[in-house]
Order: sequence, then C-alpha cells, then structure tokens
Amino acid sequence: MRRLQDVGEHVWIRRWLRRLGAGPGILIGPGDDAAVVRTRGRPFALTTDTLVEGVHFRRAWLDARALGRRVFAVNASDLAAMGAAPRFALLAVEAPPRIRVADLDGVTAGFAAAARRAGAQLVGGNVSRAPRLALTAFLVGEATTRSPTRAGARAGDALYVTGTLGATAAAVRALRAGRRGRLPPIPDRVRAGRMLARVANAMIDVSDGLVQDLGHVCRASGVDAEVELAALPVAGACRRALGAAAASFAAVGGEDYELLVSVPPRRLAALRRLVPALGCRLSRIGRVVAGRGTVHLHDLAGREVELARRGFDHFAR
Amino acid sequence: MRRLQDVGEHVWIRRWLRRLGAGPGILIGPGDDAAVVRTRGRPFALTTDTLVEGVHFRRAWLDARALGRRVFAVNASDLAAMGAAPRFALLAVEAPPRIRVADLDGVTAGFAAAARRAGAQLVGGNVSRAPRLALTAFLVGEATTRSPTRAGARAGDALYVTGTLGATAAAVRALRAGRRGRLPPIPDRVRAGRMLARVANAMIDVSDGLVQDLGHVCRASGVDAEVELAALPVAGACRRALGAAAASFAAVGGEDYELLVSVPPRRLAALRRLVPALGCRLSRIGRVVAGRGTVHLHDLAGREVELARRGFDHFAR
Repeated sequence: MRRLQDVGEHVWIRRWLRRLGAGPGILIGPGDDAAVVRTRGRPFALTTDTLVEGVHFRRAWLDARALGRRVFAVNASDLAAMGAAPRFALLAVEAPPRIRVADLDGVTAGFAAAARRAGAQLVGGNVSRAPRLALTAFLVGEATTRSPTRAGARAGDALYVTGTLGATAAAVRALRAGRRGRLPPIPDRVRAGRMLARVANAMIDVSDGLVQDLGHVCRASGVDAEVELAALPVAGACRRALGAAAASFAAVGGEDYELLVSVPPRRLAALRRLVPALGCRLSRIGRVVAGRGTVHLHDLAGREVELARRGFDHFAR
Repeated sequence: MRRLQDVGEHVWIRRWLRRLGAGPGILIGPGDDAAVVRTRGRPFALTTDTLVEGVHFRRAWLDARALGRRVFAVNASDLAAMGAAPRFALLAVEAPPRIRVADLDGVTAGFAAAARRAGAQLVGGNVSRAPRLALTAFLVGEATTRSPTRAGARAGDALYVTGTLGATAAAVRALRAGRRGRLPPIPDRVRAGRMLARVANAMIDVSDGLVQDLGHVCRASGVDAEVELAALPVAGACRRALGAAAASFAAVGGEDYELLVSVPPRRLAALRRLVPALGCRLSRIGRVVAGRGTVHLHDLAGREVELARRGFDHFAR
C-alpha cells in the first residue's frame, strides 16, 4: 500500500495535474501559482466550506470518492442558495503523511467528477501536512439571475423547502450508535436554486438545521417565522427511525442541504409555474410574520413546540 | 479569558460581519451563503494556500495578527507571481474550541487589514472545529496584464530574483533551536509582480526554496537552469547566522515569497527601465540553458555544487 509520504507531495500533485483538463473560461489551468479564468462579464459568487475528519465525517461513513463529492456538494449548495451556478473550484487538502495515495486520489477524483457534472472545473488547490484529514473547497459561481440574500424575507411571505429533511441526521444518529451504513448523498439543488432565485425574497441552504438556518434569515430580515411541524417534508428513513419524534428531529437535524425559500404572495403564481421543472419536491412549511428574529414551531393543535436544541454549533458545549 | 466555545460559532461570526464593510465590486458582502462580486470584465486569478499550526508555524513564533497577515501574504504572493492584484478574499478557519476569542479576532483582523492594504476585501469565510488551528485563504486576483506561467522559460533567458533569500529559513532554524524571536514578515511583491509580468517569459514565487521552485519552472518549461551561488541575494540575518554556508542554505531554505523571473534577452532593456519602480531589489542570479528540467548550482570557481536537500516537501520522510 502506497502512502503519501512514500510518493511525496510534488510527485502526487504533478500526476494529478496531467489528469485535469482545460475547459471553457480557463486561460491558465491547474499547476501554476494561480489559475486564470474568465466569466462572461457577469457577477460571480464566492463561497468556501470545510469538512474535517472526526467533526463532519468519519472515514467509515463514506468512501474516498463519496467524500470528495460531498466536499464539492456542500459548497455547491451555498451557491445554489444564491441562485448561482458553479464554474470554477479549488480544493485545499490537509492530510496526514500516512494517508493512502489511493484515498487521496479518490477524494480528488470524486471532487473533480462532481465539479464536472455540475458544469464546473477544478482549476487549482493545495496539499498540506496536518494531523487529520480536512478538506476545504472554494467555489466560484456565475450569478445567472438575481441573487436572493438572507435579509429579504418580509411579513406575509410563504416559506417553502425543497426535497426532504432529516435523512442525514437520522443516518448520523444510527452510525454514531454503532450501526453500519453510509451517509446519504447531498442533493443537487443548483438548478432549483437558479429557478427559485427568480421568485424568492430570501433563500438559504439548510446545513445547520432548518430552525437554525431559518433563524439566520429571520434575524437578517428582521422578521419572525411560523413553521408547522406537520408540514415538514420528513425523509422516509428519518420517519422510520424516529417515529413520532421524526418531525421535530428533522427540524433541527442539519446537513440536509435543501433550499429554504421565502416567497412573497405576488410571486406565488410564478412559483407554481416553476415547480414542475425544479427537479425536486417543494413543500410549503409556514409563513413569515412581523417580529424580531424568532422561529416559532407549531404542532397540529397550533401549540408552540419548544425544542431542546435549535441546531448545530461547532463550538457550543 | 473568553474562549470560542464560550461565545459560540454563530455569535462570533455575526460580530465579525458587522466589522467588515462593503467595497468596490462587492454586490453582496460577507454573511450570506456566498459573496457576490464583479470585476471589470477582466480575467481573474484564483489561488489557495493553507497554514497549519505545528507544520507551517508555531504560536510562539508570531502573534495572532501577524499570523492573519501571513496567511493573506502567502496567498497574495501566488497572485503576484501571475502578475495579478488581489481583489477578493475568503478565509476558512479551523480552530479548536478552546481557542481564545482574542486570538481568533486577531487572526481575522490581521487578515482583513492585510487584504485592505493590498486593495482587496475579505468577503466571506467559514469556521470549523478541528484539533489544531489551520487557516486556508482563497484569493481572487484581477489579472491586469499578461500572466506569465511556469512553462514559458526559454534557453537564453536571464534569471532574476526580487528582494533577499534566507531570512525566514534562518529565523526558523534559530526558533527550532529554542531561541526566542519572531518570523520575519512576508514581503509584498504584488506591485513588482505586475510590473515584472510585462517582461517575464516565466515567473514563480519562491515558497519551497529557490532550487525547488526554479526546478518547477525548469520541468514545466523543458529547460535547465544555471545559478551562481555567489550571485544569490542572501539576507543579512541569514549571512550572519550561517556564515560561509549562507548562500547554499538560502538556496533551499524556503518561505522567501520573493519572485523568480525568467526574462528573454530582447526584454532586458525594458526590465532595466522597470527596476527603479519595483519597490525592491532585483538580482540577476543565473541563466536558462537547454536541458530537461535540472537546476545546476555553481560556486565561484565554476564548480557544480551538490546540495543535501533540494527544498521543502510536506510529506517527504
């Protein structure tokens, strides 16, 4: 088994450079001090996100290629929430010297393949020694339409969410309990994001849990939100694993990477026309009301539900 | 003393967002899923580099603000080597929960200040929990002139290097030996890079040691290089610490972040006209000859010098 320390950083990088091709908009590709690219004069969206071994994933939970795809996908999700389409990507790898070359190859291949499928190119990166595997991606997305922020939600808006919630949180719960299995893949909502951006007052991707991410929107917009627990599109796997607690679990689970959208009444007809082309389910889950940044969850009887935790904080004790 | 785990990720981020202003070209600033920016229709350069605690620095070697400035500077150096000027920056922080908030503030403030001084804006980032402090920056630079790659060196070119070599490597050597001190700051060669890009056949920044980085140029260009050890601009501190061995030490030391430039004979007159405006010393250190990727070092007597090590590899044993 070959490890990175046997091959060396520069040999590994040179071998990879030969595999990465040129592409549209790339003037100078990977392998130089910086990649040089161009877009068609449109604004572009910039985002970064990191996955750290032992914090965001364990190696037993997904193979190397799936990990590479996942790093791309969590970043693409941020672009989707701005209505932007991925165009260029960089991947910064931190790895221990004893990492298997096959694993590093797998991560890079998975990332590059996911980028290509999304219409983007891996144009650069970096490899550093570190105690643990950590992967930071940077994506440059082309803003092809208006970019809805977190601050645009207004009282009277309807709240929608794409896809389903709770599948990854339920999987993580089972894996942590020692059951065997894999993390479900992250949904691709880039196309949905571009379409929803046309009608959204505000949009965010649900990465730290619906309640927490909706809270970010509420605070940024200066409004409250009312969400019906019964209206949440709970993933089947989550429902089977959590039973009656599934909806409140899914409301705070995190890592859904679905889009949460706030749509004003005057654009609801336009929204309905978009739905068949979104490529995913779209569920109405509540509404925006006047307030100062609080998310209220209601059960079927209309009673407000108190949650023990509101979402994910890397550093909370 | 407040630690990050006492404050929480989201509170810390929100407080920072209030301090980061808007700026030219920024349509949507920090705090959303992605920043949205625009350039003036020019190509742009993308680069990323990581500093890991215990690998690239120790906390005793530089204070938090200097660390933040350093992360910006190592990335800006890559842009300088492409003749590009920094415009937008993202900072991905990995930190242990017990990190002092004051340290995290210092790193971010140092980074943001260095970006502003260079004409760039910090428009986004990420904070993740990790066992050790690691900082990955991503810079978008505007390519304001032609971008010289590593592959353009031709036999007959003259080789030049900016500034001086060996100061950081000598400081690291002393610090590792237990002496007290600080890492010297990284030189700002963005202006020099933009000017030198106009006359360079090839350019690279010297981060892993002159011999190794020149080797990258030689391999990419399909040429050899001949370097006169006596012509290397060895930093005073390095010369004092290493004595007679200073030049060969400086040739492989690394972390100089100076620019190595390969200039064809027909552009030497233009180069001479640029020198007074570069803002730094420029030394002729050798020449490019026909070959297949090897760097030859010569002493004063013209004899070829063999080096025990050729430069820095994160993973070499």
